[in-house]
Amino acid sequence: MTQSQMNFNNVNIPEKLVPDNYLQLGLAAQRSKQRSFKELLEKRKLPENGWSDERIEELVHMLASLDSNNYPHKVGLGEREARIASKLVARRHYNFGHGIGRSGDLLEAQPKAAGSTLLARLTNALILDLIRGIGLPSCAGCFLVPMCTGMTLTLCLQSLRKRRPGAKYVLWSRIDQKSCFKAITAAGLEPVVIPCLIQGGSLNTNVDLFREKIKSLGVDSILCLYTTTSCFAPRNSDDIAEVSKLSKQWQIPHLVNNAYGLQAKEIVHQLESANRVGRIDFFVQSSDKNLLVPVGSAIVASFNESVLHDVASTYAGRASGSQSLDVLMTLLSLGRNGFQLLMDQRGENFIYLRENLRKFAELRGEIVLDSRCNSISLAITLATMAGDQMKSITQLGSMLHMRGVSGARVIVPGQNKTIDGHEFIDFGSHRSNLQVPYLTVAAGIGITQEEIDKFFDIFSKCWRQLFQTKNDKTMSLLETTIK
Amino acid sequence: MTQSQMNFNNVNIPEKLVPDNYLQLGLAAQRSKQRSFKELLEKRKLPENGWSDERIEELVHMLASLDSNNYPHKVGLGEREARIASKLVARRHYNFGHGIGRSGDLLEAQPKAAGSTLLARLTNALILDLIRGIGLPSCAGCFLVPMCTGMTLTLCLQSLRKRRPGAKYVLWSRIDQKSCFKAITAAGLEPVVIPCLIQGGSLNTNVDLFREKIKSLGVDSILCLYTTTSCFAPRNSDDIAEVSKLSKQWQIPHLVNNAYGLQAKEIVHQLESANRVGRIDFFVQSSDKNLLVPVGSAIVASFNESVLHDVASTYAGRASGSQSLDVLMTLLSLGRNGFQLLMDQRGENFIYLRENLRKFAELRGEIVLDSRCNSISLAITLATMAGDQMKSITQLGSMLHMRGVSGARVIVPGQNKTIDGHEFIDFGSHRSNLQVPYLTVAAGIGITQEEIDKFFDIFSKCWRQLFQTKNDKTMSLLETTIK
Amino acid sequence: MTQSQMNFNNVNIPEKLVPDNYLQLGLAAQRSKQRSFKELLEKRKLPENGWSDERIEELVHMLASLDSNNYPHKVGLGEREARIASKLVARRHYNFGHGIGRSGDLLEAQPKAAGSTLLARLTNALILDLIRGIGLPSCAGCFLVPMCTGMTLTLCLQSLRKRRPGAKYVLWSRIDQKSCFKAITAAGLEPVVIPCLIQGGSLNTNVDLFREKIKSLGVDSILCLYTTTSCFAPRNSDDIAEVSKLSKQWQIPHLVNNAYGLQAKEIVHQLESANRVGRIDFFVQSSDKNLLVPVGSAIVASFNESVLHDVASTYAGRASGSQSLDVLMTLLSLGRNGFQLLMDQRGENFIYLRENLRKFAELRGEIVLDSRCNSISLAITLATMAGDQMKSITQLGSMLHMRGVSGARVIVPGQNKTIDGHEFIDFGSHRSNLQVPYLTVAAGIGITQEEIDKFFDIFSKCWRQLFQTKNDKTMSLLETTIK
Amino acid sequence: MTQSQMNFNNVNIPEKLVPDNYLQLGLAAQRSKQRSFKELLEKRKLPENGWSDERIEELVHMLASLDSNNYPHKVGLGEREARIASKLVARRHYNFGHGIGRSGDLLEAQPKAAGSTLLARLTNALILDLIRGIGLPSCAGCFLVPMCTGMTLTLCLQSLRKRRPGAKYVLWSRIDQKSCFKAITAAGLEPVVIPCLIQGGSLNTNVDLFREKIKSLGVDSILCLYTTTSCFAPRNSDDIAEVSKLSKQWQIPHLVNNAYGLQAKEIVHQLESANRVGRIDFFVQSSDKNLLVPVGSAIVASFNESVLHDVASTYAGRASGSQSLDVLMTLLSLGRNGFQLLMDQRGENFIYLRENLRKFAELRGEIVLDSRCNSISLAITLATMAGDQMKSITQLGSMLHMRGVSGARVIVPGQNKTIDGHEFIDFGSHRSNLQVPYLTVAAGIGITQEEIDKFFDIFSKCWRQLFQTKNDKTMSLLETTIK
Repeated sequence: MTQSQMNFNNVNIPEKLVPDNYLQLGLAAQRSKQRSFKELLEKRKLPENGWSDERIEELVHMLASLDSNNYPHKVGLGEREARIASKLVARRHYNFGHGIGRSGDLLEAQPKAAGSTLLARLTNALILDLIRGIGLPSCAGCFLVPMCTGMTLTLCLQSLRKRRPGAKYVLWSRIDQKSCFKAITAAGLEPVVIPCLIQGGSLNTNVDLFREKIKSLGVDSILCLYTTTSCFAPRNSDDIAEVSKLSKQWQIPHLVNNAYGLQAKEIVHQLESANRVGRIDFFVQSSDKNLLVPVGSAIVASFNESVLHDVASTYAGRASGSQSLDVLMTLLSLGRNGFQLLMDQRGENFIYLRENLRKFAELRGEIVLDSRCNSISLAITLATMAGDQMKSITQLGSMLHMRGVSGARVIVPGQNKTIDGHEFIDFGSHRSNLQVPYLTVAAGIGITQEEIDKFFDIFSKCWRQLFQTKNDKTMSLLETTIK
Repeated sequence: MTQSQMNFNNVNIPEKLVPDNYLQLGLAAQRSKQRSFKELLEKRKLPENGWSDERIEELVHMLASLDSNNYPHKVGLGEREARIASKLVARRHYNFGHGIGRSGDLLEAQPKAAGSTLLARLTNALILDLIRGIGLPSCAGCFLVPMCTGMTLTLCLQSLRKRRPGAKYVLWSRIDQKSCFKAITAAGLEPVVIPCLIQGGSLNTNVDLFREKIKSLGVDSILCLYTTTSCFAPRNSDDIAEVSKLSKQWQIPHLVNNAYGLQAKEIVHQLESANRVGRIDFFVQSSDKNLLVPVGSAIVASFNESVLHDVASTYAGRASGSQSLDVLMTLLSLGRNGFQLLMDQRGENFIYLRENLRKFAELRGEIVLDSRCNSISLAITLATMAGDQMKSITQLGSMLHMRGVSGARVIVPGQNKTIDGHEFIDFGSHRSNLQVPYLTVAAGIGITQEEIDKFFDIFSKCWRQLFQTKNDKTMSLLETTIK
Repeated sequence: MTQSQMNFNNVNIPEKLVPDNYLQLGLAAQRSKQRSFKELLEKRKLPENGWSDERIEELVHMLASLDSNNYPHKVGLGEREARIASKLVARRHYNFGHGIGRSGDLLEAQPKAAGSTLLARLTNALILDLIRGIGLPSCAGCFLVPMCTGMTLTLCLQSLRKRRPGAKYVLWSRIDQKSCFKAITAAGLEPVVIPCLIQGGSLNTNVDLFREKIKSLGVDSILCLYTTTSCFAPRNSDDIAEVSKLSKQWQIPHLVNNAYGLQAKEIVHQLESANRVGRIDFFVQSSDKNLLVPVGSAIVASFNESVLHDVASTYAGRASGSQSLDVLMTLLSLGRNGFQLLMDQRGENFIYLRENLRKFAELRGEIVLDSRCNSISLAITLATMAGDQMKSITQLGSMLHMRGVSGARVIVPGQNKTIDGHEFIDFGSHRSNLQVPYLTVAAGIGITQEEIDKFFDIFSKCWRQLFQTKNDKTMSLLETTIK
Repeated sequence: MTQSQMNFNNVNIPEKLVPDNYLQLGLAAQRSKQRSFKELLEKRKLPENGWSDERIEELVHMLASLDSNNYPHKVGLGEREARIASKLVARRHYNFGHGIGRSGDLLEAQPKAAGSTLLARLTNALILDLIRGIGLPSCAGCFLVPMCTGMTLTLCLQSLRKRRPGAKYVLWSRIDQKSCFKAITAAGLEPVVIPCLIQGGSLNTNVDLFREKIKSLGVDSILCLYTTTSCFAPRNSDDIAEVSKLSKQWQIPHLVNNAYGLQAKEIVHQLESANRVGRIDFFVQSSDKNLLVPVGSAIVASFNESVLHDVASTYAGRASGSQSLDVLMTLLSLGRNGFQLLMDQRGENFIYLRENLRKFAELRGEIVLDSRCNSISLAITLATMAGDQMKSITQLGSMLHMRGVSGARVIVPGQNKTIDGHEFIDFGSHRSNLQVPYLTVAAGIGITQEEIDKFFDIFSKCWRQLFQTKNDKTMSLLETTIK
């Protein structure tokens, strides 16, 4: 049989080059590596332990050599031959150029690119193995889409439309994140906003309203129910179990925006059990937010493999393979244990962040809002600080940003916003009639305790400084008044 | 003012490290490089001559250092902090992680990523400068979309729908390329196929039928007219000038699929003049097919800058910046002259390919189909070869493929295909009622004369071999019959 | 003043490319990096904490751009213009090509290469700072020589010869390491071997014999005294304090082979105090053994800066700069704390190895030889194992080697060897009349506890297996005899 | 048999990952690559055509994986385990760390490093094949020494001394290049300078004086005759044929400094024929000057393989393998044809430079000195320019240097210099009693016609400017005198 990469199988290395006993020792040392390659390709399972960079690159180079643009004597007479003009670009793509999929089906094999095909499918297999291993054993399939989460949600909606051409409504539990909403309008569908229930300080899915809307609009006019797991506190993850039951009961598809939910075991378990009691057609997550790769792709997963092909064949064209490469390299580099460790550390750091935030709040007369079904994001009120000058509190956000803190957001009442013709009152808070401003922070995957400590340092300083300024102003106002 | 990269401005290098006169010589030598950076950023024009890899990487590293994930002491408290787990992945992305755009607008600046923002916008500016320079001075704007051409066409259609919510038909001049068609159905719109006119051996736009359909369906129900420039022979580039006139007359948007048309000066000039006499809203082209980067992105361009923002804000999410990086590096590496040279060589190689194909055809009793308005692809009949066993001729395609020729396609009658519910007779030939099988080849950008020569070598051998086989079969058939 | 690297000082980035407030944040984040560059170059001290790879590469690229072969418009009319044919080679050398030094002086600045000059001198300054920091504050200077330790010792001897042209003897305390001895003969000098004193199981410097030889041969005929610190147990580090006193008393130069002594604080302190009570002209150490870079260079250090120039100017030509680059990158990557940590861990691992070796020995009726003045290497007897078949015990070495253990050596009596005309009895044991075979192992810098644990696993298994084999043989011998 | 690199031999890639027919095509395409690896290792010949960077790196990675420091589960218990602390350093060395050779023999195999051993020996084999192919078929062997040419010459002298311990004189035909001379003193030997004959404007070997010195000093006291081929005009290459005859006649070794002579076919042929009529023990050349790699190594070659081992075993220690890697990658990248092309172009560019220099000289009343046996370097007089102010003419050199011209040297009378106790009158001119200043330029391998054109542009401008200044000065001097 032919071979694809260099090896010494049929080479008689002369003794003049290296004594045979030294060579044999070197060759023997490769066995475990060989086994790992064989196992990966044959079993398509994520290795327990991460691989070295060298081993990963060896695999990647080998795959690239199977693509036609890398054949030593290729003759390209077509309009798309994966010629790469810049050496730098070729190098950073390991000479992959052909992308993945075939004229409008992301999962089809590409005849010009056996290596890219293998790369894409292997990546999907490893992601599936990862997803199953972290708590979603019922997951039936998944694949990477080299577009953002929002566009991938749009793709899912478009594929559903082909099945339900008469349906135009998407019942959507409000979450104030633009792309999530725009995913509906981009598909040319009609969003029906289901406001959250305000319970204590937190926001929960209004399942009853979902039910009512199904009845009032009629099952056939509804394309799907659309919920979100990971979100900014004090909004909780949607009650996807209850919505799944509705989905099952009425046979309306259910789409879950699981943007950064793969990193939290609570959400993962919620998905698994929701599927058991009801129906979830697709759950979609961002690669960058969950797998620590650069922004650029999302993962569509399903408990039903066949529906995935509908999504894949809705993508009109051949897609970038670069994101699959990023995910493949990252998963091989981490291994199952590496990813599990990151998840565990994230969980611990979330608790560490919450406990410290509570202490911080208590000392300053604020509270951490009680969003128990949110295991990633936390919200702390800015009531005492804001007083009656709520808008000025937004300054806190930019103070933090200026000092290197990214990702903390200040939400104040009165920020209305219109997106594609739909008006959202108090945008950013996931609700209308917000009274108390607050700040959200999150413990995302990869965060370190050191970062959390630094954050509180900076947060304390900013708080003190803002307070000082405010009191000075009040004082001078008082003085002015007295005079 | 602050500095972003290392330089010696405020550093007093001690004489102990290097004699000052040697150092000064080294510093002086950097001036032209400095000037090139300044000019690029201030004028946003493509350099005349290509840059060295070292210079390109210096710029790219510098830009990356402006993104928040690369700040030395960053504290990430959000859900998306562009942490990159694998060193290999970080390295191949030059530590860029944040992608481009901001929650649903590809052209907005990203507060966490000044460098990525700069990268994306600079890339768009250079592409615009390139497009204007090669023959489209009226082009008003353009931007790179990190999705395939088909999905980008869908995005354009989706943005048009926001402007014309009541319209559902897309009038589409038939071209047998799947993604082009699926771009319509993916958007949930209704394609109206306008078959081509068969004139001599070639296929041309049926402008009259376009006009009739506009009248019969009604202007308000039509979302847009949709034409294609670059295509496989013997289909010609659509008569976009005439369709543009209809577009202007009836005020119906006009979308042009210019997949690989940027590489051919004939098509470029056709676009420029069509706009002068009529209306083109968007023309969309593949980055990989025109700019020699890996598959993964397309460029939307327009003669009207404002409509581009509608497209950009239809993308639901934050997108991959990797494709912008590829295009930026490639354009800087080529320079204006490098790209022009590639275009010129392609033009010459097309003529070389055509002349040789004609000679090849003549010797074998075949003809090269006369598609004068196609300056990239050519079709040669396989009549004598096929005889009455047309299907068997597809074997020629795989014989070529097996010998390293990619991109040559054999088209035989009778290949019907249904895509998203629409049936296409004789799919691949852009027409119904195909009589004679043929083979297409293309002279794409980057092709070399050496490749063309090799192709004819291989083609001749395969032809001979097939002929031999066929005759043997005929002979043995005869023999069988005689017996 | 001119600038060498890209920065935004004089560039007016248009708002169209990036909003100024985002840009300013990005620029501000560079300040600490800027400060680190400035400090490094101005103060020439090793940073406390290691730098990121990105920062290191930025510095290196910047330095390379100062070399004439990297000037954008250079014109090379000489015989040595540092042109590099292979892109891969250029890339791995960061485009450095000119090497260091100038026709026969390693420390002179190279007019064609301000960057290489800076690189080499900065590296030397950082090594000096490191050496002083880890316990040798009196060290006056040092520099890297891109040759192995042995050749560098030869270079020192050659430079001494220029000062003492009439002297031909080198008084050398025996150590059975080939290069150390060949360093003398390579220089064309006459070695006078001073055998070690055997005290208990360990070997110590015979200071009295040194004294006698000085008297008998005459001071003027002796080029230098030549001692060794780091060595294989059970030889101890030479008593360099006492030899230094002789050196001072008789005004004979003293050269110390400190091959891998920089990693052990005991040896470092020994050097510092020996210099206080006596005289050391040079101490020479391997870069790879101490600084964890690839094999290829050594460091000459002295308590007297002026004598270093004699060594540097003895090197006949211009030398490779590649080794300086390795050391620079490594030191910046580790920082002072990183290196100190490695030293501390090594110390702990040595104790861990010794304790486990003692337990291993005790259980098997062997002993760990008592070489108290050796804090890197350890020797365990193989008496019970060997019995009367000493030669067969060498098999243990290859068994370990085959199982991935490298660096363990088995020494057996009777291995005589002649090097450049000098015969050494029981070569490898640093002594004559060896009785008991033994095995040496070392805890070198970078060793991990995990490796030590694995070693004992493998060692135990091999021991068991060998013992089994031996007993079987004895048994069968007995049987044979009986029969 | 075991395999060292990934391949698909024993891997059953499931159809789910990639269709088998696509995969087979990809695998088949690797055959020519496989063949090239096999051929290289089995035949150890330089490939006719250069390899792609990807292929070269695949080979290099494969070799590195054979070294013990890259075994997946290695346990390092020695003092030298090739641990590499910095990822950047490891990457740039492709994880090679062990260097080449074994305690004092550069050509011995290293048990810990089968890959490095193979690398070094393969490199030497390819260099030998190259040397033979370009005109030295009688060359019997050669090897790369990772030291500069000067130190390598010293190494040769040291190895000769072991054979001729009583001899101390080195008869050396004067050439004013420091390292060449210092190579003798570094070895502790006594140089006997043989001044050149001044014939016309050029300098030639004084063969008679060589003969006289042999007679007067006595054969046994002479270590070797030492000549130089490549040198600055107007000195010619030494008459090595005649000196070789002396060497053979008197049985005195003959060492040739062939620093950059491998690039000139005239010198190559001179060496081949000198060996036929006489004796050459070693000829030594710089890798960087001839093979376009960074400074750092030299090549010792001989017509007698056995004497090479003496040199290799004189190197005291284990040496850097980095230079072998550079040369290997460069030779594979160029191939035999690539190197031959560079040699041919150099030859043409030398003629182009000479013709233009002659025209330049003629127009300005100067001459190009007639050094017919120098096919690399040229000298043009600066008589008219200098007038009676010869020293001021050195300014011309720095003017050229400031404008980016490197390698041009101005030689003026009166520059005496003492090196290691030997005084050289008119140093730089290879002679005493220099009358006319001159400038030398060289056409080294890799020079382009564009560079030569630029040089004359700059040279003309500097000439004009200097002349202007000089006349102004003379005028003002006249004026002063008149007053």
